[in-house]
Amino acid sequence: MFYHDGKLQYKVKVDKPNPQFAKMLQQAIGGIEGEIRVCLQYLFQAWGARGPVKYRDMLLETGTEEMAHIEMLATAVALNLETAPNETKDKMASDSPILEAIMGGANPRHILSSGLAAMAVDSNGVPFNGSWVVGTGNLATDMYANVMAESSGRVLATRLWEATDDKGMKDMLAFLIARDTMHQNQWLAVLEELGGLEGMHPIPNSFPQAEENQHFNYNFLSTHIDPKKMAEGRWSEGKSMDGKSTFTIEKAKPEGQEPELGPPHPKGYAQKEQMTGGGSITEKVKDWLE
Amino acid sequence: MFYHDGKLQYKVKVDKPNPQFAKMLQQAIGGIEGEIRVCLQYLFQAWGARGPVKYRDMLLETGTEEMAHIEMLATAVALNLETAPNETKDKMASDSPILEAIMGGANPRHILSSGLAAMAVDSNGVPFNGSWVVGTGNLATDMYANVMAESSGRVLATRLWEATDDKGMKDMLAFLIARDTMHQNQWLAVLEELGGLEGMHPIPNSFPQAEENQHFNYNFLSTHIDPKKMAEGRWSEGKSMDGKSTFTIEKAKPEGQEPELGPPHPKGYAQKEQMTGGGSITEKVKDWLE
Amino acid sequence: MFYHDGKLQYKVKVDKPNPQFAKMLQQAIGGIEGEIRVCLQYLFQAWGARGPVKYRDMLLETGTEEMAHIEMLATAVALNLETAPNETKDKMASDSPILEAIMGGANPRHILSSGLAAMAVDSNGVPFNGSWVVGTGNLATDMYANVMAESSGRVLATRLWEATDDKGMKDMLAFLIARDTMHQNQWLAVLEELGGLEGMHPIPNSFPQAEENQHFNYNFLSTHIDPKKMAEGRWSEGKSMDGKSTFTIEKAKPEGQEPELGPPHPKGYAQKEQMTGGGSITEKVKDWLE
Amino acid sequence: MFYHDGKLQYKVKVDKPNPQFAKMLQQAIGGIEGEIRVCLQYLFQAWGARGPVKYRDMLLETGTEEMAHIEMLATAVALNLETAPNETKDKMASDSPILEAIMGGANPRHILSSGLAAMAVDSNGVPFNGSWVVGTGNLATDMYANVMAESSGRVLATRLWEATDDKGMKDMLAFLIARDTMHQNQWLAVLEELGGLEGMHPIPNSFPQAEENQHFNYNFLSTHIDPKKMAEGRWSEGKSMDGKSTFTIEKAKPEGQEPELGPPHPKGYAQKEQMTGGGSITEKVKDWLE
Amino acid sequence: MFYHDGKLQYKVKVDKPNPQFAKMLQQAIGGIEGEIRVCLQYLFQAWGARGPVKYRDMLLETGTEEMAHIEMLATAVALNLETAPNETKDKMASDSPILEAIMGGANPRHILSSGLAAMAVDSNGVPFNGSWVVGTGNLATDMYANVMAESSGRVLATRLWEATDDKGMKDMLAFLIARDTMHQNQWLAVLEELGGLEGMHPIPNSFPQAEENQHFNYNFLSTHIDPKKMAEGRWSEGKSMDGKSTFTIEKAKPEGQEPELGPPHPKGYAQKEQMTGGGSITEKVKDWLE
Amino acid sequence: MFYHDGKLQYKVKVDKPNPQFAKMLQQAIGGIEGEIRVCLQYLFQAWGARGPVKYRDMLLETGTEEMAHIEMLATAVALNLETAPNETKDKMASDSPILEAIMGGANPRHILSSGLAAMAVDSNGVPFNGSWVVGTGNLATDMYANVMAESSGRVLATRLWEATDDKGMKDMLAFLIARDTMHQNQWLAVLEELGGLEGMHPIPNSFPQAEENQHFNYNFLSTHIDPKKMAEGRWSEGKSMDGKSTFTIEKAKPEGQEPELGPPHPKGYAQKEQMTGGGSITEKVKDWLE
Repeated sequence: MFYHDGKLQYKVKVDKPNPQFAKMLQQAIGGIEGEIRVCLQYLFQAWGARGPVKYRDMLLETGTEEMAHIEMLATAVALNLETAPNETKDKMASDSPILEAIMGGANPRHILSSGLAAMAVDSNGVPFNGSWVVGTGNLATDMYANVMAESSGRVLATRLWEATDDKGMKDMLAFLIARDTMHQNQWLAVLEELGGLEGMHPIPNSFPQAEENQHFNYNFLSTHIDPKKMAEGRWSEGKSMDGKSTFTIEKAKPEGQEPELGPPHPKGYAQKEQMTGGGSITEKVKDWLE
Repeated sequence: MFYHDGKLQYKVKVDKPNPQFAKMLQQAIGGIEGEIRVCLQYLFQAWGARGPVKYRDMLLETGTEEMAHIEMLATAVALNLETAPNETKDKMASDSPILEAIMGGANPRHILSSGLAAMAVDSNGVPFNGSWVVGTGNLATDMYANVMAESSGRVLATRLWEATDDKGMKDMLAFLIARDTMHQNQWLAVLEELGGLEGMHPIPNSFPQAEENQHFNYNFLSTHIDPKKMAEGRWSEGKSMDGKSTFTIEKAKPEGQEPELGPPHPKGYAQKEQMTGGGSITEKVKDWLE
Repeated sequence: MFYHDGKLQYKVKVDKPNPQFAKMLQQAIGGIEGEIRVCLQYLFQAWGARGPVKYRDMLLETGTEEMAHIEMLATAVALNLETAPNETKDKMASDSPILEAIMGGANPRHILSSGLAAMAVDSNGVPFNGSWVVGTGNLATDMYANVMAESSGRVLATRLWEATDDKGMKDMLAFLIARDTMHQNQWLAVLEELGGLEGMHPIPNSFPQAEENQHFNYNFLSTHIDPKKMAEGRWSEGKSMDGKSTFTIEKAKPEGQEPELGPPHPKGYAQKEQMTGGGSITEKVKDWLE
Repeated sequence: MFYHDGKLQYKVKVDKPNPQFAKMLQQAIGGIEGEIRVCLQYLFQAWGARGPVKYRDMLLETGTEEMAHIEMLATAVALNLETAPNETKDKMASDSPILEAIMGGANPRHILSSGLAAMAVDSNGVPFNGSWVVGTGNLATDMYANVMAESSGRVLATRLWEATDDKGMKDMLAFLIARDTMHQNQWLAVLEELGGLEGMHPIPNSFPQAEENQHFNYNFLSTHIDPKKMAEGRWSEGKSMDGKSTFTIEKAKPEGQEPELGPPHPKGYAQKEQMTGGGSITEKVKDWLE
Repeated sequence: MFYHDGKLQYKVKVDKPNPQFAKMLQQAIGGIEGEIRVCLQYLFQAWGARGPVKYRDMLLETGTEEMAHIEMLATAVALNLETAPNETKDKMASDSPILEAIMGGANPRHILSSGLAAMAVDSNGVPFNGSWVVGTGNLATDMYANVMAESSGRVLATRLWEATDDKGMKDMLAFLIARDTMHQNQWLAVLEELGGLEGMHPIPNSFPQAEENQHFNYNFLSTHIDPKKMAEGRWSEGKSMDGKSTFTIEKAKPEGQEPELGPPHPKGYAQKEQMTGGGSITEKVKDWLE
Repeated sequence: MFYHDGKLQYKVKVDKPNPQFAKMLQQAIGGIEGEIRVCLQYLFQAWGARGPVKYRDMLLETGTEEMAHIEMLATAVALNLETAPNETKDKMASDSPILEAIMGGANPRHILSSGLAAMAVDSNGVPFNGSWVVGTGNLATDMYANVMAESSGRVLATRLWEATDDKGMKDMLAFLIARDTMHQNQWLAVLEELGGLEGMHPIPNSFPQAEENQHFNYNFLSTHIDPKKMAEGRWSEGKSMDGKSTFTIEKAKPEGQEPELGPPHPKGYAQKEQMTGGGSITEKVKDWLE
């Protein structure tokens, strides 16, 4: 169950409102790298957690924190969409329609749809999509999903930090960047507890590895058409990262057949020509049609 | 530029066609854990690769391989949707409509829309979505995205392997599971080359870390309402995973203000009551309206 | 800022796990009538609230409560996907693949993607969509959006209640149905405070009503082709609901012209025939092309 | 069945074409507050109407009218994308590529994809989404959905009216604003016929209210962490809006348990550590694994 | 402007309600091959039509007809979701929850969300998507889009016809199949008027063909890796279909360079290793960093 | 199976980087007219091809070529997002934030999300959608889908060609335009092989045409409300395009009934008023409720 106190986790101050920056901040709210995604991702992972409860507990802690980050960013968007009263009054007096001033690069829905407030969309106005909320039930996979989310989130936050010279915004982003640092480390700590590379991989480590194809599991396949070019590197020689085998490298080549599908089902209403064909009609089809 | 040879990378054989399993296999084609996603993800990462070209080269190799995996799975779906000719003929002779037999748990669009072939959708018929193709331009983030994709992909493949007892399908999946093992290792190899945990984190490592908030960057924040309950673990004490600091833990508490937005813009057409309010109207609004 | 305590707002007990019902419950989580939507809707409305702060405060209270409802339902889904250990062990021993038993009408991604846990999707597996989070900045509109969300939510919950005979599930739903009753009343209370029908409508009430077309604003237009048939009712006579005029009724007829667009732009690469036309080429085009 | 006459319901004239305004108008066509949504919503409600046929008849009348509104707006978009022939000719003669002039804030697909015509998308180019078409089969819910649609639609139209000083566009919008006034009143008239607040609520009124939890149905729950702060108002005391009870207020507190899920299914391929765990492994899991 | 008469264009009768078939019929309503798509497609093409008005007029005629087809199908869905009263009463008396009987292969939202009525979704419950409404402003392209829509629509309708043995449904589908026949012919008639293959192609025929690359415009490129295998056919020899050249065939080979992107922008926060690289760092990057 | 060589199919050179043009080029990558769509469309058609294998072979050839087109365009986007090093260095020295310079009309995610690289989205940032990948299993339908895709693709490419005066970009586009010319011709060649208009239509030609309604299959229906206005043309008289009948024309009129649905299901929780109604309650409902 959840509670709130109505204050922000960290101060949000906008010195010079900027609707273009409001549009950009939306990426950190409703984008795939954004806070709605990590908030729901950690909470759904917690709610579906099976196994040691300590991870469920931690996921709840941080999922709840992320809710406060959405709140901070939503406030920042709203403040960036405000214009100082005086300035606005002056504009009212002028001939030019109010929206013109902020339309270059701004999100029109910030005016038309939300009344100068944040929305559950990304920086192009594309709505948040629930498919981004990853929880597989495999803890190691989920932790990688979380490291990745916090990495792309921190990359995004540093780019936003770079994109503004508003002191208040830079301060807020410096806080969020710091939290991403912690969260990256936090999920990595779980990965260590889960056994590190050798203990965890290949993920899932509960599948009997003897069942996988033993020729292709540590074998870099080059698809380069030139027989002499193969992208070699750490991944093509030496001990595999999971310590379970040795990397090899070879040219990819087809082990499989040319696929042959049966004729179309007569009641599926393909074209007649697909059944009686031209020169290339297969014997199989002929037999069947008689 | 790309080439093909019309053969499958690995043999695809279906002993007993099963439309329900065809529906499930779609998750591995058009789902977020599926092959269209990794194929496009590796290729887009390659096409946008900046920095050492060896990673671009490797991404191209494996992105091209994934295209062959889509092909294998699409073939597997088509074969699972086929019924042996004789059996079908018998059905034709019976009164019952042809579709009835396969509707329990099958994807209706496999009959209605695709003519018994694979589609670019997941196991619920939800279309593939380009937002899943992650490439951030930050190599370490992208490698984590790739490890995560191959981890959720291998989890999916093992679950599909479990869901069938068709010998041909199990063999094909054992091949794909093996490739996921290799690909997990492969992206981990790049992460090692990029400096391992200490060298890479916090991602991005090119952002001047002094700019981030120094109180909150290695500090686990507990949002549990009970002052005595905090989810402790490896993440709350000891050296941080990136080796740059020491974990601490404390109770989250608001550092920020109660947010205060200005009144609605007069030309944004909120309700009048939002401007003149009830008892709680702020001084700020009063001043402005006069 | 937000806090949690790790307990459920109301008890969630499943007597007889049922994966089909798990699929149905997803509608109440990630569907348009579901709890993710109302949770984010109330919170985004709070975060963007301009005007009397009492409404912002109330929205925060209830938005936070809805988070606990998602948690309850996510737990209910996970419990409905569990099978008693013994039963499972027996199944393992049998020949039949584990998934077969639950595929009739179940969501395949509950097995393939989430590891028997809830997801941010609806009962057909369609992901939650951020466009459903409505907040217009006009308080009366938003309250109607909320009444409507709680009405469709309560309708959904009663249908789910009807669809199960699991005692635990019925009890949980009876709690959620009660909360929907309260929340409907709660938003209606705000609508009353905002002036009731006469005070609020037409929404937005801050737009100068003299600017709207004065012939068509209280005039029911019948588009029935039969001159004698018009759908009469309370809406076609008597005082208008907002008390500002009297309802009238008349046949709709075109007040506007037949639309005439200019010729295609020569560099927009329409077909040549669209510029030089057949018999019906307009003079306007001819002139322009010379 | 439907008919047309090729004329516009109301005149559409654009004095000064403006591609930015064309982009904005798209919100009123393909946005969630737009005319495609209300058109399909009223028609689908009509086509699925069960109960007194008078409502079905009225929904058909107005659904058909909305089709004419899409037509008006689509025409307005096309006209806003036109440039006077002479002006265009001059541009052709200049060096600058034709598109440059209109790219600031315009929708690139108006040039690239539609050939200077309207599309079924919103003001950010996000496609219309069928999930917005609400029809629950519960008439009162549907009427609230309609009041809400017309309220957000009128808010949008007044903001568009504010965003232009084109006389023709303002006149067209003044017509549409008037229709929204009527339609708000019209759906409210049905709500009155359905019994008003006391008769209708809680929606659905056909569910036996005794079955809902009797403690929580008229009880405002405060989730504020501070025991002394509760968002009081009309919703926390006095007769409930539906006249069926009296509002109370109390602090939310967990009535439910800490959720406990079973261990991961052994064939679902979670990580091994989720089954054998660390210090916190539950007895339940231990027993089961033996 | 549009009108209606409340009757169906053709009779819709369901002899034996079948919720699975209701689910399938949704493909013809809200699927990509469905009637909402063609209705909006023809109308949007009409509303944006530039050039000879006769095509605009015809598009309006048929777009309006398609609205009646949605109506027919929506009615058919609603009727397929009805159960004869007696049968229902009996079910009420039994222990089994009402929904169980119809859940195998049915759309749960037909019960949970719409109250036994049609929705704007496809046969998997995926919402209609406005991106499917194609109108390019190039009349020949649009006519091909229309032929294609009516072809996939007729294929769908014949498969639905095959999937039912309900006499009423077969009769309704025989009507819709006939209309698809007409509509295919109708759009083909426009293509003939636009000049047939030689007159129309390559589309757009208004682009100065001399500007396109003259080596590759009638040249089949084989990407088969085997130098001796090329997919020959009518497309590789003889006069081109547009009569403007002669088909040739050759092996595809790269005419372009190996792509070389600049180093990452220093403020875009890639990893440091992407700038200073390993062994493969380019001279370009080195120079730039100094 | 697939191979690559790391070179581009045709040279891609950008003389003057232009982020606005990069945004526009995205339409040709991830838009509905773009290359991801045709690539996957041809490949999925190949992978599901039933009937003469020559078409499967050809589809594979061209699907593979399209992959190279995505690569070219992705490279073009990345190059358009680059600024010459010197120019960038100067900008660094200035006060203005780096992003400001390119925000007018650019895609913010090119900076925030992808690090100056192409993404799987269209020119508005809307993600690629798998529903656009059309393959019906009916070869003629699929060929029309392909002609249409190449027609809208060529229209798009000519508009992009028009929108730039960068010599390198114009050259690349002139190549792509040429390939679209060939591909249009190529699919038309298959249509000829499939029998041309008379042989192919109505599609599917395998459905027994006697089963379709014989009154309405070659009959243009006018829905114009004016009895004297009917959109006549080639489609209303003369031999039908498929040579199987003669076109006629008549006024559309309802052949069907006024639809009558049963009352709402008592356990579906509509409003009570929908069951007991007002004046218009049907006898059917009354009987049933007793």
